[in-house]
Amino acid sequence: MTAPNRATLWGRVLADELAKGGLEAVCIAPGSRSTPLTVAFAAHPDIDVYSHLDERAAAYFALGRARRTGEPTALVCTSGTAAANFHPAVVEADQARVPLLVLTADRPPELRDSGANQTVDQVKLYGDAVRWYSELPEPEADERKVRSLRTTAARALAETTGVPPGPVHLNCPFRKPLEPTEVPGDVPESFSDGLAGRGRDGVFVETDAGDRTLEDDRIRTVTRALADAERPLIVAGPADPADLSALDPAAVTDLADRLGAPVLADPLSGLRFGSHVGSGDAGEDGNDGDGDATRTIYGGYDTYVRELPAPDVVLRFGASPTSKPLRHALRDADATQFLVDPAGAWREATFTATDLLAAEPATVVDGLLAALRPDHSPNPRATTDDAWRARFDAAERRHWEVCDHACSTEALASEPFEGAVLASVVANAPDPATVFVSNSMPIRDADRFARPRDADLTVLANRGASGIDGIASTALGAGSATDDPLVLVTGDLAFYHDSNGLLAVDRCDVDATIVLLDNDGGGIFHELPIEEFEPPFTDQFKTPHGLEFDALADFYDLEFERVEPAGFADAYRESLETTGTQVLSVEFDSEASHRRRESLEERVRDAIGEHTTNGM
Amino acid sequence: MTAPNRATLWGRVLADELAKGGLEAVCIAPGSRSTPLTVAFAAHPDIDVYSHLDERAAAYFALGRARRTGEPTALVCTSGTAAANFHPAVVEADQARVPLLVLTADRPPELRDSGANQTVDQVKLYGDAVRWYSELPEPEADERKVRSLRTTAARALAETTGVPPGPVHLNCPFRKPLEPTEVPGDVPESFSDGLAGRGRDGVFVETDAGDRTLEDDRIRTVTRALADAERPLIVAGPADPADLSALDPAAVTDLADRLGAPVLADPLSGLRFGSHVGSGDAGEDGNDGDGDATRTIYGGYDTYVRELPAPDVVLRFGASPTSKPLRHALRDADATQFLVDPAGAWREATFTATDLLAAEPATVVDGLLAALRPDHSPNPRATTDDAWRARFDAAERRHWEVCDHACSTEALASEPFEGAVLASVVANAPDPATVFVSNSMPIRDADRFARPRDADLTVLANRGASGIDGIASTALGAGSATDDPLVLVTGDLAFYHDSNGLLAVDRCDVDATIVLLDNDGGGIFHELPIEEFEPPFTDQFKTPHGLEFDALADFYDLEFERVEPAGFADAYRESLETTGTQVLSVEFDSEASHRRRESLEERVRDAIGEHTTNGM
Repeated sequence: MTAPNRATLWGRVLADELAKGGLEAVCIAPGSRSTPLTVAFAAHPDIDVYSHLDERAAAYFALGRARRTGEPTALVCTSGTAAANFHPAVVEADQARVPLLVLTADRPPELRDSGANQTVDQVKLYGDAVRWYSELPEPEADERKVRSLRTTAARALAETTGVPPGPVHLNCPFRKPLEPTEVPGDVPESFSDGLAGRGRDGVFVETDAGDRTLEDDRIRTVTRALADAERPLIVAGPADPADLSALDPAAVTDLADRLGAPVLADPLSGLRFGSHVGSGDAGEDGNDGDGDATRTIYGGYDTYVRELPAPDVVLRFGASPTSKPLRHALRDADATQFLVDPAGAWREATFTATDLLAAEPATVVDGLLAALRPDHSPNPRATTDDAWRARFDAAERRHWEVCDHACSTEALASEPFEGAVLASVVANAPDPATVFVSNSMPIRDADRFARPRDADLTVLANRGASGIDGIASTALGAGSATDDPLVLVTGDLAFYHDSNGLLAVDRCDVDATIVLLDNDGGGIFHELPIEEFEPPFTDQFKTPHGLEFDALADFYDLEFERVEPAGFADAYRESLETTGTQVLSVEFDSEASHRRRESLEERVRDAIGEHTTNGM
Repeated sequence: MTAPNRATLWGRVLADELAKGGLEAVCIAPGSRSTPLTVAFAAHPDIDVYSHLDERAAAYFALGRARRTGEPTALVCTSGTAAANFHPAVVEADQARVPLLVLTADRPPELRDSGANQTVDQVKLYGDAVRWYSELPEPEADERKVRSLRTTAARALAETTGVPPGPVHLNCPFRKPLEPTEVPGDVPESFSDGLAGRGRDGVFVETDAGDRTLEDDRIRTVTRALADAERPLIVAGPADPADLSALDPAAVTDLADRLGAPVLADPLSGLRFGSHVGSGDAGEDGNDGDGDATRTIYGGYDTYVRELPAPDVVLRFGASPTSKPLRHALRDADATQFLVDPAGAWREATFTATDLLAAEPATVVDGLLAALRPDHSPNPRATTDDAWRARFDAAERRHWEVCDHACSTEALASEPFEGAVLASVVANAPDPATVFVSNSMPIRDADRFARPRDADLTVLANRGASGIDGIASTALGAGSATDDPLVLVTGDLAFYHDSNGLLAVDRCDVDATIVLLDNDGGGIFHELPIEEFEPPFTDQFKTPHGLEFDALADFYDLEFERVEPAGFADAYRESLETTGTQVLSVEFDSEASHRRRESLEERVRDAIGEHTTNGM
């Protein structure tokens, strides 16, 4: 590695080392102080550069890409407030365990706190939200310094995918000249021959983080507890990106079947959609899991879980489930609850779980399956009450019957509601596809109305901190990572909030079908008691804005179509067959949607109640 | 003070106490956890509420308002990434010494780090960028706790206007119920009678921060140094909001005249425009300060300061000047340089200043004037070389001659350049007016081409961290504070970056004339050496985007007009007489603009050189 000056050397070594460590993509916002990084990344043959003009959008785009792939994406910005604009996405990456490598250019130490332009305190700018913070040494063609630089780069990348994965922040001070101008003597020719200069063939330092696995004894006691349960339950909350790729859904359904445990699969769990979903689960024909089809994966629990008997032993994967009724059912269950978390974190805010298993979900599932094998001695035998899964089956059937009816073209023509769009988005999504769902109402509607399906759907959301910021950017970043068609479902507030992110359609060459649920403000507040207090409900909570999004689509050169709720499914299918990016805008009255959700829930509960008045 | 429950009590006491402390405005982004704050502020008769849908824009709007008034503005958001979206503006408020009170709602302690929804680590979220961080006690109708709450509120507000002023962060945990629902027994009726409940008539605790003044002996030595100087100079950099209101420009010109010192006034110094600017300075007739008109305020120094003899004693106010030639001239001057900074901070990144006077600029000026009074004994007598100010006069005259010529309609028709727009914006601004100028090229062009003027113009920019984020929001926030007409000058990247901020035109009822200098990307990079490196210059630095901003204006319901450079002045004057918000878009080739700036500088330097070849 040689270079015309030390700043350029720094950029090149860093890019070289990160590429050797497996980095494939970087999002860069333009700036001067970051020139050595930008120039090096732009010239590197193995790293894709995505150029963004708003750092907040850049960071969410990188987050989306890393979330979709489970692999780190890097971020580059200049010094100053630019770096603070990364903060929201860094917080989400922390909470959602997404590998992000944040590279902030900085002024050299002598210019800090001296009134120098665009110079702010970037030291530990993101506080405890990052897995690791470090500052690069000041550039110089010094063997030890460059070895330190290579080691830091390799370690930083490894930290982003450590346990748990997350953001890492490297602050990168540079002095002028920043561009690749020749500075005689700055980097001796001979420097490229040394180890530091040329680096190693592969990454400079390998990091091997051992997997966390449980001891055999512990696996046996957990297996016995589950096998002895009368009403065992598996709850899969939103999965971390690392677990999405590591956990084999077929192994989970295998485990569930042996235990006689229903799997309540959050739409973000990686378990609600896929080839492991049996016909009983998916119910794609009129038979709908009736009769003896095996159902293992359940998606309609939000409406009925509180109506069924409580589980006595629960095995939980992933983060806290989206469904509040499910969380409350678990809180009130008085059950033995095993939380599986690879990082040993406590992600259960009712504090009713009893056991924390700090191990990889995949190894826990494998261990449980092995312990349940017939040749295993002593062989725990599932003692599940046979009626247990039948109760879930019946409730699940009712749930989708009611939903199907409510989502029919006829019903929607008279009683439109937002949930029907989520149902259709998932039911009619191509196989494979990436479906990104905004926070607030869309993810809740996906939870209730997106039916389990035997299709390779990657359903994602920013469920770490559950903000409505950065939604379009995260979706487009996720879309950039594969050739799968991309669908984004967003509300109008989130669409406005990250309107800047739409520039990535053009600049980063990502296409999407964008489903805009436009209810002119914060519809979710109709679900909260503040609805009763007017004022300030409308002005300060619902905040109707009257924005007409066709002009915004026009600004970003996107096709825009207003669609009636009853015509959505057709328009959606058409958009999926069209190249380019379309915005399908469906207008709703958020209050009416909310009332409709309530009445559907009631109908499911009533139907279940008729069957269970003399139940367990 | 009574309330239906403890959360409501907390919000009401906080709003009550802040209003008593003088808070007049709060920017609120909708959210659930912040309900007690939002409800209380919305109901308070003495506090104006501005509702925003993007927290980043909300924070910059609050910043703009506080910057314009020098008085604190509060911010409210819900928990989670919402709070991180405030970070860029908090950083700018820190650097620019703008009083901001940031109130972030939070989950109560038991829900933190437990996977609870929208719960992130908000403790010290903004690191060292705030003057004070505190967390409110958990709501409860307890006398001591409420006295603590009132004291904290009063102290927080006082801290925002301390020395130096800046942002303060109060993290506010709340438990449900968040809305004003009756909770029997939560707040006893009798509670309103106690001191804590009713508060005091005025603010609960007064904070009196003593002014920093210099000792008389020190004032005398400084006075003597300035009076003994042969080539004294006063440099006024960008002023802090507090100094903008406290420093009397007439006193500064009086001091300068007595010392024979030119005042080089940054456009953000509060000294380039105003009634203290004499006819000689303003040169509004053809005579242009020629002859014996007294000129004290100089604005054209960027082009000529390096051509003149170096000062021997310099008195500096404010932050580091925008002009790089000026900073370099001071660096190379080998002069005694007094930096006046009320906070005793060092804001001079060349490290050539010799004396730091940690005192209020106003008291320093008053002290120096008193020491220079004839009846003062011993009476320092200015020994200034008579030719000294004459040299500046001559150079200033040449500068504006060249500029006037370049800005004529005929010249602009053949050689358009961006600086002419800045010249016109300031020359034709109504009196009074608030003119907000974006970072990057607009502020640099304002520095070079905005002529001193005898008019009450408040020229502002985000010059703390000099980011191009939040520009529209900051401008509209500044505009919201007074009835003065508002003009915003922005480049296309900044306009895109804070496009969300334009929603405040409608939601916060602020009108503006928005001057959009559209050169399709980052024109400033043509001023940097990276211009020579292609690739990656165009793709990663200049970043042309091809956005057509008329659609964006349409989205936000703003009038949009494309204007030729030569026709700008007319269109601008017309817009100023029109109600509503107009966007005047002037397209430029940034490279041509840059070359034109270079040639103008050269012309001024040549003209000065002819006069000074035998100079000092």
